[in-house]
Amino acid sequence: MKVVKSLDDLRKSRMSLAQPLGLVPTMGYLHPGHLSLVKAAHTECASVAVSIFVNPTQFGPREDLSRYPRDLERDLALLEAENVDLVWIPEVETMYPDNYQSWISVDNLTQRLEGEIRPDHFRGVTTIVAKLFNAVQPQKSFFGQKDAQQAQVIFQMVKDLNYPIEIKVCPIVRESDGLAMSSRNTYLNPQERKAATVLSRALQTAKKEFDLGMRDANLIKQVMSSVFEKEPLARVQYIACVNPDTFEEAREIDGKALLLLAVFIGSTRLIDNLILG
Amino acid sequence: MKVVKSLDDLRKSRMSLAQPLGLVPTMGYLHPGHLSLVKAAHTECASVAVSIFVNPTQFGPREDLSRYPRDLERDLALLEAENVDLVWIPEVETMYPDNYQSWISVDNLTQRLEGEIRPDHFRGVTTIVAKLFNAVQPQKSFFGQKDAQQAQVIFQMVKDLNYPIEIKVCPIVRESDGLAMSSRNTYLNPQERKAATVLSRALQTAKKEFDLGMRDANLIKQVMSSVFEKEPLARVQYIACVNPDTFEEAREIDGKALLLLAVFIGSTRLIDNLILG
Repeated sequence: MKVVKSLDDLRKSRMSLAQPLGLVPTMGYLHPGHLSLVKAAHTECASVAVSIFVNPTQFGPREDLSRYPRDLERDLALLEAENVDLVWIPEVETMYPDNYQSWISVDNLTQRLEGEIRPDHFRGVTTIVAKLFNAVQPQKSFFGQKDAQQAQVIFQMVKDLNYPIEIKVCPIVRESDGLAMSSRNTYLNPQERKAATVLSRALQTAKKEFDLGMRDANLIKQVMSSVFEKEPLARVQYIACVNPDTFEEAREIDGKALLLLAVFIGSTRLIDNLILG
Repeated sequence: MKVVKSLDDLRKSRMSLAQPLGLVPTMGYLHPGHLSLVKAAHTECASVAVSIFVNPTQFGPREDLSRYPRDLERDLALLEAENVDLVWIPEVETMYPDNYQSWISVDNLTQRLEGEIRPDHFRGVTTIVAKLFNAVQPQKSFFGQKDAQQAQVIFQMVKDLNYPIEIKVCPIVRESDGLAMSSRNTYLNPQERKAATVLSRALQTAKKEFDLGMRDANLIKQVMSSVFEKEPLARVQYIACVNPDTFEEAREIDGKALLLLAVFIGSTRLIDNLILG
């Protein structure tokens, strides 16, 4: 496994990798969700590259950039065990040198939910992902369904900007009690960790009602609200039921729908989602 | 010479081209300025691709999109004679399908001059050029110094977004009387065509003063103003003297400077520029 930092070294190392090349972009502090992306990349690609970069431009000014968890040594050991071919760990100065001034934005998809609550978040995501794509030039790239809106925004960007890259979205990996894996789960104290299962419980309760025939999006959202009402540590930021392609709010579920949650457990913001239909 | 329209055909044809591949993006209605870019590409690249696309998103609502000159048959004959390997002529619907929503912007460099006068112009330029780069994946791309600010904006975008593409800027090609070649020169009536030499005359007069030792940017701009005052068909939009890298206004020329002009001759807007030092 080759580990590189500079753009020059990345480009040189990339040349010798077998194609198709799969890229798994990460912010590090890897968990089984990330590793499931690496495994998926191995099944579809001749070589696999992983980037580790805590991208400052996708964090808001009052968000957790400075305390975002990091453990590079552990990350590299995990990736080595997964037979990753190339790991790129660029410095912030490499990605955003002095006089940096170019940005990629996706308009419609980023207006709601995460994009509404976290201004400039998706601009940071699309810009860094485009930079990773341009530098690594993969044929496929792997993202987690956990960040459902992000995956759709990147899918749209790739289509709009003619990137010759196939975007693969892999299922959410959950702890045994249902909590969606996230590097931010480390922020939770034991009591909060227990309460955090309320997100997946709410989604599962909604799914049960959907499976029993409920199709009114407002009723489904009310079902989820009532689950959160019983959890005093939870403060709901949004509960949404959207069209999975456009992220427009659904009224009556006709075919597929995507349930999305953003919830504070104590001071930690968690997101989760579930596809219906 | 292969001529393709769809993105799929472009990608297939691109695969068989020898590398390094040089791309010359154009809006068609080719003149010797464009052909000089093709020639430069041939000297540096194993194969040459040209795109012809009148990009609607870089025209303002009151600009000349609908009457922009086109002559595809003539363009193709000229490119055939230059031994171009591949010509891509995408349709507007290919480049901007329904639900298109992704944009690339370069901040600082686009705040002044063309960017100030033509809002969204550079956003349209950078977006289409990035799309062309992603689709064609050239190793080098060739632009004319005539659109000096555009060339610098693209240079900045390529650097910022980690495109593995070398940007080459080729000198302005001029008519025998000094007028910079431009597809828009076709808008000029005979009287205006004669008056249009005032742009290059102003630049040459300024250069003469610079060569004689003038270094005060305001004095140099006054020299140019006085040339335009003698030409009743000319209406100056801007006369600028800037740092060629940052496009910030110069005061005292220390090293290199770039003189830039935007001038209406009758109802036709022309631009021209000259590097000093």
